[in-house]
Amino acid sequence: MMHRLAEKEQAVSPLLTDMYQITMAYTYWKTGRHCLHSTFDLYFRKAPFGGSYALFAGLQDCLRFVSYYRFTQSEVDYVKSVIPSCDQEFLQWLLTVNCASVTIHAFEEGSVVFPSEPMLRVSGPLAVVQLLETTLLNMVNYASLMATNAHRFRIAAGPEAKLFEFGLRRAQGPDGAMSASRYSMHGGFDGTSNVAAGFQYGIPVFGTHAHSYVQSFCSLSDCFADTKHFISSKDSEMSSQAFRDRVTRIRDTLDLASRTSDGELAAFISYAFVHPSSFLALVDTYDTIESGVPNFMCVAFALFEMNHQPIGIRLDSGDLGCTSVKAHSAFHGIAEMYVSRFKAPRDGVLNMVSKLSIVASDEISVPKLLELRSMNHEITAFGIGTHLVTCREQPALGCVFKLSSVQGKLRMKLSEDPAKASIPGEKVVYRLYDQHNKAFGDVLALSDDKSLRGGESVELRRRQRPENVITVVPHRIRKLLQLVWCGEPDVKQLDPQQYIKMATSRMKMDVDELDSEVVGVVCEPKEYPVFITSSLYQAMRKLQCLIEIRNESDR
Amino acid sequence: MMHRLAEKEQAVSPLLTDMYQITMAYTYWKTGRHCLHSTFDLYFRKAPFGGSYALFAGLQDCLRFVSYYRFTQSEVDYVKSVIPSCDQEFLQWLLTVNCASVTIHAFEEGSVVFPSEPMLRVSGPLAVVQLLETTLLNMVNYASLMATNAHRFRIAAGPEAKLFEFGLRRAQGPDGAMSASRYSMHGGFDGTSNVAAGFQYGIPVFGTHAHSYVQSFCSLSDCFADTKHFISSKDSEMSSQAFRDRVTRIRDTLDLASRTSDGELAAFISYAFVHPSSFLALVDTYDTIESGVPNFMCVAFALFEMNHQPIGIRLDSGDLGCTSVKAHSAFHGIAEMYVSRFKAPRDGVLNMVSKLSIVASDEISVPKLLELRSMNHEITAFGIGTHLVTCREQPALGCVFKLSSVQGKLRMKLSEDPAKASIPGEKVVYRLYDQHNKAFGDVLALSDDKSLRGGESVELRRRQRPENVITVVPHRIRKLLQLVWCGEPDVKQLDPQQYIKMATSRMKMDVDELDSEVVGVVCEPKEYPVFITSSLYQAMRKLQCLIEIRNESDR
Repeated sequence: MMHRLAEKEQAVSPLLTDMYQITMAYTYWKTGRHCLHSTFDLYFRKAPFGGSYALFAGLQDCLRFVSYYRFTQSEVDYVKSVIPSCDQEFLQWLLTVNCASVTIHAFEEGSVVFPSEPMLRVSGPLAVVQLLETTLLNMVNYASLMATNAHRFRIAAGPEAKLFEFGLRRAQGPDGAMSASRYSMHGGFDGTSNVAAGFQYGIPVFGTHAHSYVQSFCSLSDCFADTKHFISSKDSEMSSQAFRDRVTRIRDTLDLASRTSDGELAAFISYAFVHPSSFLALVDTYDTIESGVPNFMCVAFALFEMNHQPIGIRLDSGDLGCTSVKAHSAFHGIAEMYVSRFKAPRDGVLNMVSKLSIVASDEISVPKLLELRSMNHEITAFGIGTHLVTCREQPALGCVFKLSSVQGKLRMKLSEDPAKASIPGEKVVYRLYDQHNKAFGDVLALSDDKSLRGGESVELRRRQRPENVITVVPHRIRKLLQLVWCGEPDVKQLDPQQYIKMATSRMKMDVDELDSEVVGVVCEPKEYPVFITSSLYQAMRKLQCLIEIRNESDR
Repeated sequence: MMHRLAEKEQAVSPLLTDMYQITMAYTYWKTGRHCLHSTFDLYFRKAPFGGSYALFAGLQDCLRFVSYYRFTQSEVDYVKSVIPSCDQEFLQWLLTVNCASVTIHAFEEGSVVFPSEPMLRVSGPLAVVQLLETTLLNMVNYASLMATNAHRFRIAAGPEAKLFEFGLRRAQGPDGAMSASRYSMHGGFDGTSNVAAGFQYGIPVFGTHAHSYVQSFCSLSDCFADTKHFISSKDSEMSSQAFRDRVTRIRDTLDLASRTSDGELAAFISYAFVHPSSFLALVDTYDTIESGVPNFMCVAFALFEMNHQPIGIRLDSGDLGCTSVKAHSAFHGIAEMYVSRFKAPRDGVLNMVSKLSIVASDEISVPKLLELRSMNHEITAFGIGTHLVTCREQPALGCVFKLSSVQGKLRMKLSEDPAKASIPGEKVVYRLYDQHNKAFGDVLALSDDKSLRGGESVELRRRQRPENVITVVPHRIRKLLQLVWCGEPDVKQLDPQQYIKMATSRMKMDVDELDSEVVGVVCEPKEYPVFITSSLYQAMRKLQCLIEIRNESDR
């Protein structure tokens, strides 16, 4: 949240966790198991939005959280109040807990990740890592979902369209909104309407005016109720009055007065006079084509005569594609009229008109963008709110945090549904490349497994169908998990703006290496194989038998 | 977010707004319109989740926001950086902006609200109220959606079932999670797993253990790795060793050893020994009926022998209804065996068994609850996560903030879609009651309209079909909008816990007064009429003609 806080104070409390983490920690402590060296994996089982991948995000928040992980006395007192029977000595221990003996390996922020791959691998004392579970999940789940969703909007809109996040009013409270603004950048957005996100993360911010602004004007006399603030030298090139007169002269000469709203024109005149170099008008308060666009053009020509380039218009209702075409055609029609009636330089006017943006912003979704791309439209930028920030098509990523080893011994969770079984052991993840530098599969391997090398043949198994052996010869391999925390951060500290740039560039590199059918927005994305090594498969089989046998008779 | 902050520091920054609010404020200021007295309504057009109503929530956050509304120098410097051309004098003005000349009327927190009714009516200087828009929407939108969603879960689960919010890991970041925990209480939940919400809002917190806890145990020898922490006097009534032996003796005598997991039993023994008065076991790590339930029962009997009442079991996978019936029947079957083999007091044992809870917690949705209610099941409590906190069925409420008057003159937004047209004027809302104290409709009226009185006949029109006049005689009327802010808070300051109680009790009162088909979870809820008074209708007609005429020829 946009609190006015130092880094340390921005850290969330260790109490932001599920109660069962604390009852478990107490049980571990009391039974002498709290220091057992354990490893947990944070991953998703199924890619979101019917796609094949997700973008990993949230690492910076996780690292801040572990950096300042400490219970205060009042927090420990609260724990005592909810577990009244717990030992005083446990509370003393809780006061000493920190993450100095925890290590975290992670994908780079912005990476393309596939199901079952540990985005975070967290090792350390059993009770401590257990205590971190819920908060890490909270920090990775929405961040990654949001970045992935934003990327889908980017893919659907195509590389040319400008994309702005407009979801502040519809997000899950202040923090939800801040995360939405930040992680939409990871997915390839160009900016946000959220000023606090601009302030805090250095994200470009955009915005002009609302319907209520237009409605607050009734007539041309409302233009400049009070001009006492027009006193600075830069206003002196033209008085507000002269600007208004210039606009109305253009309107009258072009015969545009008959169906346009005076209040709307007054609103546009005021806005343009105050923001001459960033005039973008919301044109659908009354009637887009009959009133909004003609009014906009009159003001645009007045600015043009003063050597300012107007920015364009915003459409917030109706059939956006169709209206954008009509508006675009009206730009040109009115411009020709202007050239002829004012004997204006044709090239200059057409050049000004060719630079006008049409921003659309009414309930834009991924299917809506795909529909627009398949038809004729003139929209150059999109403001995207509800569907982006709520991730309406799938509002939760569903990451899990599963125990994979205790004191070096492998652990796995079996399930009637094999897809829900976890993969045991302390693991690493590799990406495999062919000679054209295209990624063709990822591999999960136990961290001590040295069988995988670039240029050498290796036997692998599909994570989902491990019965069959597949032999591949990767031209090159890349290790995807990096050490990011070993009692202290092991990554370069970047300011938020640099960090967003780094994540976006990692996203672009990863996406470029992948088949566009894997990271596209299609109904049935091409499957990207996630393999396991033969030794990991053998270890899983052995463990599975052990668990099943023990459940049967092994006592 | 669970920051460790004083009230003032918890207030969000005025920058948590859309950029266009600031460009508009600058335009208003520059053109001398910033002080025009204006009124805006915050309302939703369509009730969420296909229902007829919403619960209003978020008021406390809104009041905190306006209480501490002040730009800091660094925030103003940032504004300068994004509007480089703006006047220094405007920035000076921005530094002086506060909400001393703003008034806010609102529904009571927890109220049942219907479409078009202003949940907030905000009046004050045009530029100041405009600056508040986005943040107020952000604070009301998710809070109200969440409270409404929680209430639907409560209705679907029935009044007897316990409901716990378990969504921390799936919410939109830390704040989203805190809001989810808090506003689920408004809708009728009994508690949360979120410890920070317990600490901050005094909400009851619940939780026991996870699958990873069970998996961390392999054999009975893992029970008590180290007993040095069993030193306090309350442990002395029975050693950990003796407790374990008691449990295994019960297991062996009941012949339950053959298909149960030793690791799971060890996990249960440890948990129960550490938390003897709150033993609730997650029983589906291996096999619920073959291993989890029998293991749980062995430990439950051992506790029973020590005069502790075990709490029950939690199911987190599979067919919850069917498994709960099987588990319930297994409780009784194993209990009968225990009574006969141990010559235990039958009444006492059956009494213990009858008190056992069955908690279910796997992807519970409203349709899932309705399905469970229509079949045989033995679930007594639900832990609800993803579907609750993400409001999956409709993740945004879509409240709007519309200008309704400027300097006493009415304003309305027309739209091709009549449902999207706003209702002009400074309005009040009444609820109408019949002689049985049942609410039968709400009325929007201009605030100076005195035509509505209890016991007197009045002519009204439906908001949606205003052509027809309806005459009603309310037995009693109740004014729903209260003054809550007039430059300072006009409501009693309550601590968060009292505040939640107050909101929940308002919700219950409102729900009790309404037809259960209006506030139920049904596919086609009974329509609850929202009326407008005749004078409001006349005012709207007049304004509509004016706007349309002006658009045509009025110049």
